[in-house]
Amino acid sequence: MSIVVRNIERADAAIIAGLGECGVATVHEAQGRKGLLASHMRPIHAGARLAASAVTVSVPPCDNWMVHVAIEQLHAGDALVVAPTSPSDAGYFGDLLAVSARARGCAGLVIDAGVRDVQALTEMRFPVWSKAVSAQGTVKETLGSVNVPIVCAGTAICPGDVIVADDDGVCVVARADAAQVLDKARARIAAEEEKRRRLAAGELGLDLYNMRERLAEKGLKYV
Amino acid sequence: MSIVVRNIERADAAIIAGLGECGVATVHEAQGRKGLLASHMRPIHAGARLAASAVTVSVPPCDNWMVHVAIEQLHAGDALVVAPTSPSDAGYFGDLLAVSARARGCAGLVIDAGVRDVQALTEMRFPVWSKAVSAQGTVKETLGSVNVPIVCAGTAICPGDVIVADDDGVCVVARADAAQVLDKARARIAAEEEKRRRLAAGELGLDLYNMRERLAEKGLKYV
Amino acid sequence: MSIVVRNIERADAAIIAGLGECGVATVHEAQGRKGLLASHMRPIHAGARLAASAVTVSVPPCDNWMVHVAIEQLHAGDALVVAPTSPSDAGYFGDLLAVSARARGCAGLVIDAGVRDVQALTEMRFPVWSKAVSAQGTVKETLGSVNVPIVCAGTAICPGDVIVADDDGVCVVARADAAQVLDKARARIAAEEEKRRRLAAGELGLDLYNMRERLAEKGLKYV
Amino acid sequence: MSIVVRNIERADAAIIAGLGECGVATVHEAQGRKGLLASHMRPIHAGARLAASAVTVSVPPCDNWMVHVAIEQLHAGDALVVAPTSPSDAGYFGDLLAVSARARGCAGLVIDAGVRDVQALTEMRFPVWSKAVSAQGTVKETLGSVNVPIVCAGTAICPGDVIVADDDGVCVVARADAAQVLDKARARIAAEEEKRRRLAAGELGLDLYNMRERLAEKGLKYV
Amino acid sequence: MSIVVRNIERADAAIIAGLGECGVATVHEAQGRKGLLASHMRPIHAGARLAASAVTVSVPPCDNWMVHVAIEQLHAGDALVVAPTSPSDAGYFGDLLAVSARARGCAGLVIDAGVRDVQALTEMRFPVWSKAVSAQGTVKETLGSVNVPIVCAGTAICPGDVIVADDDGVCVVARADAAQVLDKARARIAAEEEKRRRLAAGELGLDLYNMRERLAEKGLKYV
Amino acid sequence: MSIVVRNIERADAAIIAGLGECGVATVHEAQGRKGLLASHMRPIHAGARLAASAVTVSVPPCDNWMVHVAIEQLHAGDALVVAPTSPSDAGYFGDLLAVSARARGCAGLVIDAGVRDVQALTEMRFPVWSKAVSAQGTVKETLGSVNVPIVCAGTAICPGDVIVADDDGVCVVARADAAQVLDKARARIAAEEEKRRRLAAGELGLDLYNMRERLAEKGLKYV
Repeated sequence: MSIVVRNIERADAAIIAGLGECGVATVHEAQGRKGLLASHMRPIHAGARLAASAVTVSVPPCDNWMVHVAIEQLHAGDALVVAPTSPSDAGYFGDLLAVSARARGCAGLVIDAGVRDVQALTEMRFPVWSKAVSAQGTVKETLGSVNVPIVCAGTAICPGDVIVADDDGVCVVARADAAQVLDKARARIAAEEEKRRRLAAGELGLDLYNMRERLAEKGLKYV
Repeated sequence: MSIVVRNIERADAAIIAGLGECGVATVHEAQGRKGLLASHMRPIHAGARLAASAVTVSVPPCDNWMVHVAIEQLHAGDALVVAPTSPSDAGYFGDLLAVSARARGCAGLVIDAGVRDVQALTEMRFPVWSKAVSAQGTVKETLGSVNVPIVCAGTAICPGDVIVADDDGVCVVARADAAQVLDKARARIAAEEEKRRRLAAGELGLDLYNMRERLAEKGLKYV
Repeated sequence: MSIVVRNIERADAAIIAGLGECGVATVHEAQGRKGLLASHMRPIHAGARLAASAVTVSVPPCDNWMVHVAIEQLHAGDALVVAPTSPSDAGYFGDLLAVSARARGCAGLVIDAGVRDVQALTEMRFPVWSKAVSAQGTVKETLGSVNVPIVCAGTAICPGDVIVADDDGVCVVARADAAQVLDKARARIAAEEEKRRRLAAGELGLDLYNMRERLAEKGLKYV
Repeated sequence: MSIVVRNIERADAAIIAGLGECGVATVHEAQGRKGLLASHMRPIHAGARLAASAVTVSVPPCDNWMVHVAIEQLHAGDALVVAPTSPSDAGYFGDLLAVSARARGCAGLVIDAGVRDVQALTEMRFPVWSKAVSAQGTVKETLGSVNVPIVCAGTAICPGDVIVADDDGVCVVARADAAQVLDKARARIAAEEEKRRRLAAGELGLDLYNMRERLAEKGLKYV
Repeated sequence: MSIVVRNIERADAAIIAGLGECGVATVHEAQGRKGLLASHMRPIHAGARLAASAVTVSVPPCDNWMVHVAIEQLHAGDALVVAPTSPSDAGYFGDLLAVSARARGCAGLVIDAGVRDVQALTEMRFPVWSKAVSAQGTVKETLGSVNVPIVCAGTAICPGDVIVADDDGVCVVARADAAQVLDKARARIAAEEEKRRRLAAGELGLDLYNMRERLAEKGLKYV
Repeated sequence: MSIVVRNIERADAAIIAGLGECGVATVHEAQGRKGLLASHMRPIHAGARLAASAVTVSVPPCDNWMVHVAIEQLHAGDALVVAPTSPSDAGYFGDLLAVSARARGCAGLVIDAGVRDVQALTEMRFPVWSKAVSAQGTVKETLGSVNVPIVCAGTAICPGDVIVADDDGVCVVARADAAQVLDKARARIAAEEEKRRRLAAGELGLDLYNMRERLAEKGLKYV
């Protein structure tokens, strides 16, 4: 059954923005090392950053019809999160879809498949994380669904979850956990400032983190 | 049997240049979504573009002798298109070969294997699409052929076919089809201008392409 | 048994620097086409270069405890060379470890696994060659060893060996061979100057390297 | 947070058995082509079949401690379904764990990682679908969870879902859908009997499925 | 443009059978080490052998409509040779298609994608070489072509070419070359008989093939 | 420099045989979880077992000349252990080489590349672990070395080391450690007997290994 869910709940915009400032590695740690998409998800241009609510799209292999359907469901600041139901590296998304998505307020794209027109997307500074770059065309023959739970690049994502992406990859935060994860992420960053200062001054992690005793207990020998 | 075919036919230079301006994704669509090389073929530096006649080279694995042979067969504006007869990621091509190829008018390289000296090649702005970057040296022991039909990265290519490459990958157009494909590609680009304008103004693809009725017929439900 | 070897011998700093100037492809050729790490080892930012003595680190999968231990063993100009005992793409190394390593004089990192915080590492211009970029966190539970012989990306590396890395990948030179390899590499570069000049002037490799006779003997036919 | 959920609901045993008789391909079709695990999940010996309730296990990479914890939660006829939180091909499961699991009624194992002692497992006819075979040992240092929702080989699985596996791979059926999917699967098998008979007699699918008209409409040409 | 070519030429049945008796490795050598499909093409059951004329099928990704079309074009003793236009591991072919194909005289299947119902196919002893086993269903929405030149698993194949397959993989022989290749293959087998006898008696290949002198010339040292 | 080392030391035959009886998983554990080759090394037929001294062969990519050289160096009970200097899946080894190797007492082959004639090798029950099966022919043009240290499938192997292989993969034991590893392996097997009995009787690993307290300390919650 193919459905489009029109009303989804989103996290608070300030929380989403806050998570984006923390970055993927910190957010992933702050929520207990979960939510990371597989490492084959790479940005098409370095330095891109994304923090947005997920509009999820379940698509058939090599068929991008539902991406058109999904664009209508975008609110300003949303990201399209697209997963095919069978592995594909075809180019589901390009120049025209990016223009259309941006016109509807789209903040970026995460897709476990291919994209094309990457030169144009880069000039637009449209942020994309994908499995592949490929000009391979897709068809518009088979339905999928919009705003249903999906698995994208090995990770379960629900519509309205917060997507954070940067050069380290892509991480998802459950909408309900977003505020709490942001608190933990900010605490983590604050704590790292002092550590960074001490490490930069030459102090060793072995001392800063009190590792020497436990290493000796485990049996580490210096020779 | 190892042969070098000296006289090959090429497409008209203006047509080749025109196809290059259209880019890979458009050319691939314009000729009915065929001719695309596998998505593992990536440019060694972003922003490179190539439109050229193929001088094909069938090489043994880890043996680049025939690349030297092929360079003699280059006309100004040709591209070397190299495929090994067994998978290899060795570095068949580097700095010196690029200097030599460029001196003979070579417009770029497409190779389903590895290249090296990529820093030098990038400084020269010598365009390369390859499967890998690797410093692994090759030998000069076994013959291959030049200007015979090959399969490169999963796609059949004949000598004199037109190679178009950019950040989206590599596409081949049969020499005999080049003029017709260019016409279709240009028509496609012209048609896209109007679409881009309307999509940028916020019109939906669902309406622009009249998709709503067919989606409903297929059974899509909005909830 | 987990050990840390504190005193290792290193090659002469001038020799290491000299090898770095020659670059990976030349060094790999100069020592008889050996010592190259697998081509999946890629720099996290283009244009990085490294020439350093290896402080080797054998780490459990997804456990970066020993990296902290290894940093204490760094001398100025050393590189960390890290190999997991079972395949992993987790993010063993990030921002804070880079700050700490650099404070101890670390010249860069080679790791057959993942790294994270690549935006920060890139801003620091900290050179890294890795198998993956991944924010995936690691634990600190299981010992490994520092400055023991390891296999990294398919190549055997001993502590104190010279690591040369650039956009072409990573190559290791045995410490005892470093001076001799540098001599050969420099000779190779000198010889290439003249070849480059002649090739740039349009002379063919077929003539420059006297290949025509041997090609004919092997049976190459021109048609 | 690491938890073990002790009481999970399971589908009716007769329904589970019925799904097993239908096989993976039929069940996958009957539930609308969803629920299939990635095709890298292969049986360690041909001809194995499994139909069971999932006891899910979320494990750290290269750490099989939670498998021991999970075995206590098995009811007769359950399957262990194991997914690491970061990719691993280590050998999480072998001879002794199989003996223990079987003693607790375990019907088989589905694991998106490695197994070992496959000769012993084969002699026991213990059914296993895995990503890899590897003798690589694991540690017991880090917690995970039992009977929580997981993503295994790209597919979301909840505790108590029905796992069907055979030589075609592994498919999951949501517990709540199991009865309905079984009805559809049986209807499908019944319908296929007649089709098989007619096809075996030489009737063409083109006629049996009335494809000719639609093919012509789409523009298929016979030459 | 989607076409079905109805009349193709085939090689002589006795020649096809003869090539099948020679096996893949011998045929590949006899025709100059060409025509081999990529090594990811594996038989679904060990011991299968195939020698047949290719009925080629170019299919869209995850769409098996054209397989139904192709079955009508089979003559007794033909093999279906199927290549998707974009990578796919979906299960294009299963039990019912095998029944139908066999009823039309089909000798086997070579497909650079997935198959399913492998237990049934194995019981039927229907020979299949594929890239994957997967229950993933396909659609019937988009046309392809039958009996046109294709590239399958990296190798160009024309309709009517001879396909030889066994546990070593799949090799194609151009129809026009089939008789000549058979002669060479048989000569090769005859020559190998004597070699096998002498090697089995303990004579070394170094002596049998007179390698010692050339090895010494190349500089091999015994220490 | 290409060399053949004629005299290598081997471990005691009884120790080698003893390690073979223990199997790969046990030997790997007994020596501290090291020495395992990558999991892509698979047997060409199930149930094969190997325990032998390594005659190592460093070969160029797609060139099997040195295998002929190596066969002369075999003593009864040795295994050929072959690693290419650049990745290759070509078929270095087939029927005739197996006949020749067996005539010289060869116990089996471990090769990080391809083999062919697997049907014949299976009928001979010649044990092979390889990265691929491929009929792709190799040349005899470039030297390599015999009985030098190599890296095979990610693991360092010296001539005379003990190779143990079975359905779980391949493990190497340093010659000097063989006796000690055998003692530990046998102790491990003895200890497992009692564990197997207790687990088979339904006792849980949680109790047998006293895991409950440490799990609770780490924070595991039952709900």
